[in-house]
Amino acid sequence: MTETHGKYDSGCPVAYALDILGDRWSLLIIRDMAVRGAQTYGALLEGWEGISTNILAQRLKQLEQDGIVSKTRDPENRRSFRYALTAKGRDLAPVIVELVLWSGKYNAADNAMTGLLEKIRVDRAAVEACIRAGKTP
Amino acid sequence: MTETHGKYDSGCPVAYALDILGDRWSLLIIRDMAVRGAQTYGALLEGWEGISTNILAQRLKQLEQDGIVSKTRDPENRRSFRYALTAKGRDLAPVIVELVLWSGKYNAADNAMTGLLEKIRVDRAAVEACIRAGKTP
Repeated sequence: MTETHGKYDSGCPVAYALDILGDRWSLLIIRDMAVRGAQTYGALLEGWEGISTNILAQRLKQLEQDGIVSKTRDPENRRSFRYALTAKGRDLAPVIVELVLWSGKYNAADNAMTGLLEKIRVDRAAVEACIRAGKTP
Repeated sequence: MTETHGKYDSGCPVAYALDILGDRWSLLIIRDMAVRGAQTYGALLEGWEGISTNILAQRLKQLEQDGIVSKTRDPENRRSFRYALTAKGRDLAPVIVELVLWSGKYNAADNAMTGLLEKIRVDRAAVEACIRAGKTP
């Protein structure tokens, strides 16, 4: 836990980003919100990569502290919470897009998903605009 | 070690990228080669964030296995090695650029470095072209 959120304090912008995103799960949680439209703890737990509930809870808390994710009570069910990306989180749209393009070029696995990649290749600006608007692309 | 390079096998391109880059150090090593022009183990060890020698050695080996970094004997000193980014590694240029732009927007720390950020804001394409050509921007 400390390893993933120690502070480099070097002042380098890449290090700043990795202080927040430099672990195996944070960007996948952000992807689940931005691309899969996950809004609840249960939906996030059912992601494609099988995140464990303790890691999800810890990462969500950290992402909230880092200003990437907001947590609000569900207006339709006051005992539940809704998770959403903040503007700071949605502004990661071009980072996600570039990671997808890079993987699309180099991932030769048979099971490589290409749905989002195709959308980005057709109209990258539209995909980024969707994510920035809080809509699934 | 296993934690940073287990395989998600979900087929998602974001997961593919994080299988290779999803830790606190890999992208900083890539930055040191792409932006600071580090070519030797010693130069990489003297990065801004104080990487330890055992983590550096492990990550370099993994980045070689993942096809991001090449390691060759120094022609001027056959007892030393030179490290360089492969085309796959240099193709991370736009990912680095987007991370720098995002951090430039949100990192309010007094010690935030702005040199590369300014260069990207002035001429993003030139910065990416430099990194892709294996030159420091």
